[in-house]
Formats: sequence, structure tokens, C-alpha cells
Amino acid sequence: MSKPKVFEKPIGVKDYLPLAVAKLRRIERQALDCMSQWGYEQIITPTMEFYDTVGVASATSDQKLFKLLNNRGTTLVLRSDMTAPIARVVSSLLKETAFPLRLSYHANVFRAIEEEAGRDAEFYQTGVELVGDPSAEADAEVVALAIASLKAAGVERFKIAIGHVGFLNGLFEETLPNRPEAQEALKACLLGRDYVGYREKLRELKLAEPVQRELEGILRLRGGQEICDQAMEMSVDATAKSSIKHLCEIWDVLKAYGVCDNVLIDLTMIGDFSYYTGMTFEGYAADLGFPVVSGGRYDNLLTQFGRPAPATGFALKTTRILELLGSEEEPQPERVLIGYDALGREAALEQAQQLRAEGVIVVTVRMEAAEANANSAKQSGYAKFIPFFGAQESKGEQTK
Amino acid sequence: MSKPKVFEKPIGVKDYLPLAVAKLRRIERQALDCMSQWGYEQIITPTMEFYDTVGVASATSDQKLFKLLNNRGTTLVLRSDMTAPIARVVSSLLKETAFPLRLSYHANVFRAIEEEAGRDAEFYQTGVELVGDPSAEADAEVVALAIASLKAAGVERFKIAIGHVGFLNGLFEETLPNRPEAQEALKACLLGRDYVGYREKLRELKLAEPVQRELEGILRLRGGQEICDQAMEMSVDATAKSSIKHLCEIWDVLKAYGVCDNVLIDLTMIGDFSYYTGMTFEGYAADLGFPVVSGGRYDNLLTQFGRPAPATGFALKTTRILELLGSEEEPQPERVLIGYDALGREAALEQAQQLRAEGVIVVTVRMEAAEANANSAKQSGYAKFIPFFGAQESKGEQTK
Repeated sequence: MSKPKVFEKPIGVKDYLPLAVAKLRRIERQALDCMSQWGYEQIITPTMEFYDTVGVASATSDQKLFKLLNNRGTTLVLRSDMTAPIARVVSSLLKETAFPLRLSYHANVFRAIEEEAGRDAEFYQTGVELVGDPSAEADAEVVALAIASLKAAGVERFKIAIGHVGFLNGLFEETLPNRPEAQEALKACLLGRDYVGYREKLRELKLAEPVQRELEGILRLRGGQEICDQAMEMSVDATAKSSIKHLCEIWDVLKAYGVCDNVLIDLTMIGDFSYYTGMTFEGYAADLGFPVVSGGRYDNLLTQFGRPAPATGFALKTTRILELLGSEEEPQPERVLIGYDALGREAALEQAQQLRAEGVIVVTVRMEAAEANANSAKQSGYAKFIPFFGAQESKGEQTK
Repeated sequence: MSKPKVFEKPIGVKDYLPLAVAKLRRIERQALDCMSQWGYEQIITPTMEFYDTVGVASATSDQKLFKLLNNRGTTLVLRSDMTAPIARVVSSLLKETAFPLRLSYHANVFRAIEEEAGRDAEFYQTGVELVGDPSAEADAEVVALAIASLKAAGVERFKIAIGHVGFLNGLFEETLPNRPEAQEALKACLLGRDYVGYREKLRELKLAEPVQRELEGILRLRGGQEICDQAMEMSVDATAKSSIKHLCEIWDVLKAYGVCDNVLIDLTMIGDFSYYTGMTFEGYAADLGFPVVSGGRYDNLLTQFGRPAPATGFALKTTRILELLGSEEEPQPERVLIGYDALGREAALEQAQQLRAEGVIVVTVRMEAAEANANSAKQSGYAKFIPFFGAQESKGEQTK
């Protein structure tokens, strides 16, 4: 292993310079403010968790967890998402607090990566968890809040696709009973949105023609409310039917929220987290291949932490939203440069204090009167140059 | 090693519940806003850095660094401060940007700890670095900004003690030449503010009486501007004299800032970071044994990253400021609960949207009309309960 050069940083992590930070912080603030308006209260959890608890409960595969040892030799992980840590807090510090709980967060999360992939090892998420409410209203609330948060953050054109893990599970159980490998292979294709591979896999399985046609048919189950009706007719499996019924109820509530223009039903969608048990959703912005939000219902995770409860939530992919909005101009506040010499210092610093109290950004610099130059200040990005040189009398007044 | 229980988290790290988060975020915002007013621009760097670069350059002792391996087997560290990462960025991404650079940050930093100590393994810092300006004006600017930031964050009663590593280095070289172990032992006592131990150590060294009296005398070098004059007479060492001269200049500028009420000179103070080369300072709040801010000048650190430059800065100990202000009441925004049934849903959600747009925090819950109860809403902390049950006509209007 060659030694890293002094100016290098690890693969997959980033420095954010002031312009990017201003934008990232604006997205963070606007999303969190929106979540707060909906009654979600922010919590912060540690960067490091025990591998045996939160690490194992998280949906991140073992080789993608960053592991380290503490002084006692216990294995820790850098958190890979916020859902498992929040489940831990709900079951410990908040265990006396009645449901439903509405919690929000903004946090960096970590994934050990293969360096070729060019993916982020550390990135930001801003999200919510609604714990203790099993209803379709609760699922619709988090979908509607995801839409409101994206709009608040400045994302204008996007679609949220909602699906249900129960529909595919039920349908596959019905059509491919006792063939878990075949089921998994087909699900893997859907997870990767590899529809060509899905059709090939179906042909390889040499299924009876009606079954093959039915399983090919789910690729067309993407659209509006009509998809629910079509899906209802496809399967007689109880799990599949109750899943579709739940999705129809969510759609009705989303209509009442007035957000259906931003939503489509996509029954081919499989949430990428193993802990999802019900509705799942993903949001795609125009011009971006990655989801900007993902979420879903996870009714079994809290059980692992000793406080069984239904739960639903989502995470905005804040770092990706930053990439999406990266080229848009951020309003730049005006900056004033005050130059002074020893005699002008006191008046200059007093003037700086006054202007800052009025909300102006002021940089003060001691310089020689000969260096003082309004033009060079302008070239350095200052809107105004205020000189304080020599003995001060009413000079501070004049510059106001 | 016994397995951790499901609800446990690692030693030395914390969960912050909504009330604490609201306060922490307010402190963060007010401090960063203050720094922004002074022209400091925020940057964000990764949580993980290379051990061989930032890890080694940081002032944290090796056994206190959290280390982990990446996929290639290279050793990484969780950052232990922000000064070394910012030095890396100044020497790489910002290498074409002219000095002086004014940068700010809010970040969590990590220290591997002995669990008995009850110290934090992860905590928050909010700070600035002023890079490329060697002057006393620059040192005074960061001290004055530290004072302004503490006040902005809500810390009312505090004192900043300023010292200079050059004074003690010069004085010890003069009085204890070629006795590095004795020098280190005395410095260790001063670093720990163990004045009894310092006097004992002095007696053990069996020095000539005038020398012992001189070295005991520095314990009295704490106070206002008069300390500079006293110190000037103590030593003829050039380093010590130029250090005192620099401190006097800083004091003059701080007088112009009008902040000397919050400042004292303390020549017994040794900065706790090995990279400090000049003025160092620490701020203590009334009623708190730990510093709430520390900072100083580090003119050699940038050289390690290939862009030699003088620099000065500070870090607010944000987590400790939170502890200090923890008992103060944070203003709680009013929350409204809207209850609805299937028929009232659309009007209820529309009303919620309107109220949120007006800045009200609104939680919506589907319930049976029989459960609807303004009293129980009040008991749950809501300022107001708005019901939407049955067919809606002008009901939404009435509730406004």
C-alpha cells in the first residue's frame, strides 16, 4: 500500500466548499422546517453504534458496513441509515412516550464501497419516521410530507412511485410456490429495474403459459389509480389482495392531500431495504437517474429493539438533491470591506459592529492608506469599500 | 466480551432528544450566523480522513484517535478536530484562492476515550480558521469573534484567558537551558492547571533561589494589561520578549473592539494542542469547569500540507455550551391538532395546509368523532384542537 499524499482524502468522501455548503444548508433547513410544520420533532443520534444491535438490524449488507473496534474490543459500526438508530431510541430513551411518535433527522450516513463504483462512502439524508400508526393515513401522510419536503427544498419536477412488498410476495407465492430461488432471482431483476433480465429469467423458468403471461403482465402495472383495479383482478392470493386494498386506501388519502399529480403506482417496485413490510416508495426527479427520496413501512423492525410497533417513514437523499440543484444560482449576500490604519482602528471596528448588527457581512482589514483601493475591493468580491485612515472625527458618520 | 443489549449504545456517545436538539441547533445557527457576519464562509469536510495525513497532523495523541480500515486496507481516522482537515482543503481544493481565507465550520469530532473518564467520544464544535494573516490584528479578530459568537449563542458570563506559547518556551529556555525533561514536567503541571504540583516540582529541581523565585512568579502573571509590563521585565530572552510584545498589540486591538471586560492575560496558560505556535486562548463560563472555547495561532501546520502559511482560529465547545444552557427554557412553538373522519378528510387536510403555510405546526389524525376531545388534545400538549367530522360545508371557515 503506498502512502496517501498529504492533500488526499479517502475514496468516496467529499469536501464541500462555501457555495455548495450554502446550498446544502439551505436544502437541510427548508426540508427540516417543512417536517417541523407537520409536527415532526428532530432528534440526533451518535455516528457510532454497536454492530450487534443497530448494525445487524440495519438493512445494509454486512460488507457495506464500516466497522471499527472501541477500546474494549467491541465492534462498532458507522451508522448506515437513521431508521435503526431511531428504532433504538424509541425503544429506550423514548420508551415511556406514547405513540404515535413523529421524529425527523438530518444526518450523514456511511457505506463501505467498492472504489470502482464511484459511489459515496458518506452522504447526507434528511428524513422522518412516524412510529405507532399502522393506518393507510399514516403511509399517505409520509408520502405527502415527502412531496412537501422536496418542494420546500426546491425540487420542482419529480414523481413518487409507490408500491407494496406484499403484492409481489403474494403473487410470487401463488405462482411459484416452494421455489424461493426463482422468486429471489425475479425480485433481484425488479430491484435493479432490469426488465429485460426479468423476461429472460421468466423464459428460463419454463412456466405454464398463463403463469408466464401473468408474471410478465406485472411489468405493465405502472400508472394511476386504474392499476389498483387491474392488480385486484390478477391475483387471488390473500396477501396480494390486502396489499392492493391498502394501496388503494393510500391513494384515496393522497387525493385528499391534492398531490396525485406527483404520484404513480408502480407494482414492480421493490424497496431496497430488507426491513420493509408494506408500502414502499421512491421519488425520481427529472434529469436524475438516482432516487431523491425513498421510504416505506417497516412493521417488524421495532420488535428487534423490544418495543413492537408499526412504523413508516422516508429519507430524502440530500446529497443527490444538492447535485440536482447544484447549477442553480444561490443568492449571494453583499459583503463590505472596511480598511483601517492604527489611528482609524477604533472607529472602523465600531462601524463594523454597527453594520453587522444591521445584517451586513463585514470584513475588516488593517492596511496602509496607500493600499486602500475601492476598485481592488470590488475585484475581490466586495460590494463596498469603507476606509478609516488617520485621525477619526465624524468620518464614521459620513460613511453611513 | 458480553454482547451489548439491544437498546444500548457505545460508551461516550449520546442521543439528543427534541428539546436538546432544538437548543443545540439554535446555538449552532446563532454562532454560524455571527461568524458569517464577520465574513467567515462555512465548509464541510468528511468524517473520515487518512491516518497518515490528517490523523498524524492533528494534535490528538495516537491512542485517542478512532482508527478503521477501508476496503483497500488503508488506515483511516474519524476526525479529531477540524483544524487539520481545513489545512488539507486550504492546500488542495482552495490552493488557488488568495489569502487571507476566512472559513467557518460546525462539525462533530471524535476521541477514543478511557470509559472510566466519563468523557465524550463524539462531540460538536463550531469554529473558524483565519489563514494567511500573521498579524496581531488577526489574532485579536478571532478572539473578538469568539466573544461575539459566545454572546450570540446565549452565553452571558464568561472570561477569555489569553497567553502565548512563546513566553513560557523562552522563559524556560533561559532559566532551564538544556533541561528538556524539567521543562516538560513544569509545562505538564501548567497544562493541567496544577499549581501546587508546579511549586513542588520547582522545589524538587533545587534551582538557584532567584531562578526559583522567577519561575514561581509566573503563577502571578494573570490579570489585565499590567501583566504585559510585568512580564516584559521578567525575561531578557528574545522569544519571550517578542511574544509579550505581540500579546500587548493584541490587547490594544481588543481594546478597540471594546471587549477587554471579557478578557484577561494569563501567561501560565499552555494551549492543549501541540501545533500552537503563538497566542493561545481559552474561554471559561461562570459555573462550568470546562472551557467553552479554545483557540490559538498555528503557523507551522499548513507547511505539512504543502502550502506554508500563518493561521489562527478557535473552536467553540458546542456540546458544553449546550450543557451550560441546558436548564434554560427554549421557546416552544404552538402546536395544533386536527382530527377528522373519512367525510371530513379533504377539508381537514386543506385546513392543515393553510395553517402550515401561515407558520403553524399542525398534526393531523384520523379518528372517530366519539374520540374527538379538545381536552385530551390540550393534555397532549396541543394549544388547539380543530375537528372535521361528517360532511363539510363551511365548517373549515368557522374554525379560522
